[in-house]
Amino acid sequence: MNVEIRPAKENEMNDVLSLIKELAIFEKEPNAVTLTSKDLIAHAFSSPPLFICYVAIFKSVIVGMFLGYPRYSTWKGPTMHLEDLIVTKKMRNKGIGRALFSSFINFSYSKGVKRVEWAVLKWNTAAIKFYESNGAKIYNDWQIVQMNEKAIHNFILNKK
Amino acid sequence: MNVEIRPAKENEMNDVLSLIKELAIFEKEPNAVTLTSKDLIAHAFSSPPLFICYVAIFKSVIVGMFLGYPRYSTWKGPTMHLEDLIVTKKMRNKGIGRALFSSFINFSYSKGVKRVEWAVLKWNTAAIKFYESNGAKIYNDWQIVQMNEKAIHNFILNKK
Repeated sequence: MNVEIRPAKENEMNDVLSLIKELAIFEKEPNAVTLTSKDLIAHAFSSPPLFICYVAIFKSVIVGMFLGYPRYSTWKGPTMHLEDLIVTKKMRNKGIGRALFSSFINFSYSKGVKRVEWAVLKWNTAAIKFYESNGAKIYNDWQIVQMNEKAIHNFILNKK
Repeated sequence: MNVEIRPAKENEMNDVLSLIKELAIFEKEPNAVTLTSKDLIAHAFSSPPLFICYVAIFKSVIVGMFLGYPRYSTWKGPTMHLEDLIVTKKMRNKGIGRALFSSFINFSYSKGVKRVEWAVLKWNTAAIKFYESNGAKIYNDWQIVQMNEKAIHNFILNKK
């Protein structure tokens, strides 16, 4: 199948946002996305950019994407984080997800990072199986913690 | 107690590395740290820097630190990640950890981020209690996935 994978352009951020929303629905958080395509453009093309985003194109249509950014390990040094990877529903099981994943790993390798990392939903067993078959390790002993904007504001206001 | 919290200086990265190693021991990974203080200096003072690092100073001695960096949420926009926060063993339970945490939240707030995030070990109940009492939410449905340098190399070599 003839799929091209390359960095997303400014006028493609609407399609990228649609894929982000499709992924949020898959992750059972349909109303979580408050970001706009204008935000994505500003953040993707700032100096330095806040993330990298590659799209998969089949017959001139964007059918998938990955989005990632650098992180840092105090044990190993520079790493890359894979925030999102998605193929639109009707184009799944054709190897496009694997091609996007491969593109991300190749990008990370070219940057000489010491680790690549991401998060996966526990019930997404197909993804877990794919990741493990490619040499990734799942860490069951760590939990993700977040404070949202409201919690940050409350913390600032309540501080003694 | 008179504790000063401020950005770490270049000649303090040896002390920062000692704290990173102390945290790795606490996390039961005593041999995980391959980073050197030379690496930390290069990465902290590059343009742009790969992370921010603040130290806690009591009677001219570095007794704690936090280290963090920007991340990006495709739902909310720019976020900050707290990679490490540690107070050296004999100086714990004096409010220094809280002061470092507060400094990190204030830094993040000043940058206008939409979220702060980090990871916690499941068995570290004291930390979890502290985070939750400050408005943080623990996500039990996500798992952390990593590929180390060897796994990345293998993936690149084995790719068809």
